[in-house]
Amino acid sequence: MITTQKIEAGKSRLSLARYFPILDWGARYNRDILTSDLVAALIVTIMLIPQSLAYALLAGLPAQVGLYASILPILAYAIFGTSSTLAVGPVAVISLMTAAAAGQVAAQGSPEYIAAALILALLSGATLMVMGLLKLGFLANLLSHPVVSGFISASGIIIATSQFKHILGISASGESMPRLLDTLYANILDLNVTTLIIGLASMAFLFWVRKGLKPLLIGLGLSQRPADLIAKAGPVVAVIISILAVVILDLAEYGVKTVGIIPTSLPPISAPMFDAQLWQELAIPALLISIIGFVESVSVAQTLAAKRRQRIDPDQELIGLGSANLAAAFSGGYPVTGGFARSVVNFDAGAETPAAGAFTAVGIALAALFLTPFLASLPIAVLAATIIVAVLSLVDLKTPFIIWRYSKSDFSAMAATILITLILGVESGVIAGVLLSLALFLWRSSRPHAAVVGRVPGTEHFRNIERHKVITLPHLLMIRIDESLTYLNARWLEEYVLEKIAGRDELRHVVLMCSAINAIDASALESLEAINHRLSDAGITLHLSEVKGPVMDRLKRSTFLDDLTGDIFLSQDKAFADLAVRTEDGDSPQQTGDIWQARGLI
Amino acid sequence: MITTQKIEAGKSRLSLARYFPILDWGARYNRDILTSDLVAALIVTIMLIPQSLAYALLAGLPAQVGLYASILPILAYAIFGTSSTLAVGPVAVISLMTAAAAGQVAAQGSPEYIAAALILALLSGATLMVMGLLKLGFLANLLSHPVVSGFISASGIIIATSQFKHILGISASGESMPRLLDTLYANILDLNVTTLIIGLASMAFLFWVRKGLKPLLIGLGLSQRPADLIAKAGPVVAVIISILAVVILDLAEYGVKTVGIIPTSLPPISAPMFDAQLWQELAIPALLISIIGFVESVSVAQTLAAKRRQRIDPDQELIGLGSANLAAAFSGGYPVTGGFARSVVNFDAGAETPAAGAFTAVGIALAALFLTPFLASLPIAVLAATIIVAVLSLVDLKTPFIIWRYSKSDFSAMAATILITLILGVESGVIAGVLLSLALFLWRSSRPHAAVVGRVPGTEHFRNIERHKVITLPHLLMIRIDESLTYLNARWLEEYVLEKIAGRDELRHVVLMCSAINAIDASALESLEAINHRLSDAGITLHLSEVKGPVMDRLKRSTFLDDLTGDIFLSQDKAFADLAVRTEDGDSPQQTGDIWQARGLI
Repeated sequence: MITTQKIEAGKSRLSLARYFPILDWGARYNRDILTSDLVAALIVTIMLIPQSLAYALLAGLPAQVGLYASILPILAYAIFGTSSTLAVGPVAVISLMTAAAAGQVAAQGSPEYIAAALILALLSGATLMVMGLLKLGFLANLLSHPVVSGFISASGIIIATSQFKHILGISASGESMPRLLDTLYANILDLNVTTLIIGLASMAFLFWVRKGLKPLLIGLGLSQRPADLIAKAGPVVAVIISILAVVILDLAEYGVKTVGIIPTSLPPISAPMFDAQLWQELAIPALLISIIGFVESVSVAQTLAAKRRQRIDPDQELIGLGSANLAAAFSGGYPVTGGFARSVVNFDAGAETPAAGAFTAVGIALAALFLTPFLASLPIAVLAATIIVAVLSLVDLKTPFIIWRYSKSDFSAMAATILITLILGVESGVIAGVLLSLALFLWRSSRPHAAVVGRVPGTEHFRNIERHKVITLPHLLMIRIDESLTYLNARWLEEYVLEKIAGRDELRHVVLMCSAINAIDASALESLEAINHRLSDAGITLHLSEVKGPVMDRLKRSTFLDDLTGDIFLSQDKAFADLAVRTEDGDSPQQTGDIWQARGLI
Repeated sequence: MITTQKIEAGKSRLSLARYFPILDWGARYNRDILTSDLVAALIVTIMLIPQSLAYALLAGLPAQVGLYASILPILAYAIFGTSSTLAVGPVAVISLMTAAAAGQVAAQGSPEYIAAALILALLSGATLMVMGLLKLGFLANLLSHPVVSGFISASGIIIATSQFKHILGISASGESMPRLLDTLYANILDLNVTTLIIGLASMAFLFWVRKGLKPLLIGLGLSQRPADLIAKAGPVVAVIISILAVVILDLAEYGVKTVGIIPTSLPPISAPMFDAQLWQELAIPALLISIIGFVESVSVAQTLAAKRRQRIDPDQELIGLGSANLAAAFSGGYPVTGGFARSVVNFDAGAETPAAGAFTAVGIALAALFLTPFLASLPIAVLAATIIVAVLSLVDLKTPFIIWRYSKSDFSAMAATILITLILGVESGVIAGVLLSLALFLWRSSRPHAAVVGRVPGTEHFRNIERHKVITLPHLLMIRIDESLTYLNARWLEEYVLEKIAGRDELRHVVLMCSAINAIDASALESLEAINHRLSDAGITLHLSEVKGPVMDRLKRSTFLDDLTGDIFLSQDKAFADLAVRTEDGDSPQQTGDIWQARGLI
């Protein structure tokens, strides 16, 4: 069944459904899907409760803020987001970045600090929204994989280190390793042994849940998926046991710090404070939070969508995440994004539509109303253990080696990101990584690969004279450029050609072989014109060969083709055959025929 | 004479001569060259005297600073520069930028203002020097041709407008058009009629010298070159006549402002003031001055070098210009660079080596010692007229139209540069142009051209299914990517492939045709791995075809080839022939043979 088909360039979609994906899946909703979504929501809710509290703690915010950030933002994403399984809420790296940014403008625990977190959510929500409406999602490309990987590893290390204070029961602060280690070291003698025992026991238990429980459950006869889901619920067990231990053994007497009284309420609806000075100071951190959050979230959403041959729309994802952050800003939360662990659980538990997210939001809201009294006795050391165990999986020791083997320049960007993040903090780390990647990219773009080519004897192929035994002629220079011509390499092109002609007094013709050139911008066009004039001044004719159709169409809109001293050849072979006999302008056909023959070319 | 040759990759040069080009040409110096250089130096000196005074005036500096900036800097460039004909000294655009930068930290006419100009020379000299030593010349590529062209045109307009105050004999200030026009308008009633007459007469004379004198001289029997050189000396005639007019008619009585007493001395040797705060404020302007100066200078030097089939070395040019600016900083000058007009005169007058520059320096030094008393009576309106006539040739009205036709995105960068330079000033203009060009470039790089291809019936060619009638198969998708894969387009690649497979349930094989891919960085490799896994999750096999040698070598250093679910085909045709018969995993050779035959492919 051979088909000569055309694929439609772009599906026409209702523009309303483009911005409100809920209209799309809402119409197809039925009872089966409802059941799947409800089950998934229940499982995710159980997992999210301790996680939300833990990440709020990491962000330096009251525990309930973590719950609030998991209610309305999820609902907003369910309306505007395009992934059917992405679970939005507080995540580790964004919580750390929030702590770093808010900590620069206010002291942890102060009302100003909470206000700063709301402003960060507002500004990053607005940033994401604007980027989505202007279709600026490509800006996230500025974060290369090595930079993101390095940043997340380094953040994991900082986060784990920052939580050791809770395991030790001492105080420490700082968003970079040197300051953190300094304060940890200074207060190490204050450590609380009971807290330490609880912390270490929780960590050991959670590590075992991660590594040992699933094989055990499978050994007991459970199948892969339920074993996986039960193992993911491990932290809930640690939470329940530790609460019971605190209440029964009255551990608060022994100096074990607990979460304390959490207000029993739905998220407070309020607008973030307006303060021009503060907004300005938080603008850059909010931008970084938006972009890092977006990159993380889109990667997760794409991975999960592909498993079901679905697609997400990155520009609409910006709007989805933007609305989630705006929702967080107006309901007492802090910056949120799509989290990896929770999304995978949602997916594995069988969520089919964003409605699963909406049901999760209801679940968390019920928890905020009815479970908070029980959470008051939860030891902070247990939450810290949850975070440490979770983030250590972010620290990726293998990738740096893989990247080192593959590409030294990518490795240098990664290493710089890791070191600067650890030493100077998260913001400097991201910025350094982005700038270094960009500089390396621009440097490479400004010196593309090019080669002087000659004809492989007996063929129509033209190859690099430095790698192959090829035929060249003293009056003819053939150059192949393996890259589009842009303003970044326009000057290089001039230098390259001038270098190649320097000192070659017999030279009469230069051919630029354009088979790999997909575009020529205005700067490069001017350089081509300059090359044409300069060669002409030196008595050399410039020719082009194998110019692609779209490039040729564009060249026709300039005067370059009129000014070009030489010809445009359809193939390099034709150029060679033709120019081989044009040694001097005065050559008679008789003479050229002789030369042609003498050279054994015919 | 067919030669199978290898060109040496790079000439081995004495490393000392690499950094001191003077050792190179100094060794070959002889009497003939000396004569040529002396003649050229004399002509350039005559032209430079009024020009140096005029540009110092434009920069808001005392007239003698212009002379000082034309002495030691030229000598320094003669030692370190690589162009045999580039003439270094004050130029219009750099003078305007100096005025803008120094005007932000001090009032014109104050000693602090002069100090700021010296600091700018020092900082930009150091910047150029460091860029040269680190071989960072490619950073100048960030200025695209349209941005530079737009910037220079806009600067020309600002400069010409700023000089009208001297023609009118009123005061006005500001480095952007709105402020300039505002102050001009406010003071218009103070205009001095005598000054206006001198100014307009000078302008008319200079325009005539430019356009009418050369044809006249040629008509009188002079040949092209001397006619050209005499016409270039026109400003000197205006200077002499106006000085005589002022002295004889005692025009100072009528309110005609003159240059006034210029100290008769060689350049003062002194170190620029150190002030951390001031240096910091001037760092960005100095950087912009360096880069704009470098771009201008290198373009001029390259144009002239190519005419004689010589080469300049851009990294060494950075060192040459850096040393010239450092020399300016330590000898009472201000930022300098290679100027177009004077270099062309130098070239046309027959300069053969940088020694011509050295002789020019001696000429200007003699002028500073002996001619300054005569220059005291030179009307400022005449200098202003010189500047206006010179810079109006910088204003390029044609290029915007040409670029508009050729490329809308290049035009937008140019238009933004022109508008922002005119409205907000030179620094904002350059920065906006660079950022916009970069954003457009990154945007294009992030969405390269790609096409789903099919086989052209009866051939081995594969073409875009949207443009050609080609053969495709429902279980086989072939994608050609026309760009190297980098972190900027890695995410695009994932989206593109996932979009093309979405909804195609019969699909079993995807082939990426890599004929146009010159490199794959670590981010793109990870995206390829992700695509491989996601396709595998969806039951689709990923294949590559026509992978280039160097790309393949690098891929072998990763685990991608081990994980790849499909094969690597040497040609797209082989991929098609092979995969056309692989419809299901379970196909027996018998079955596939049948399908193969049934499809008429064999």
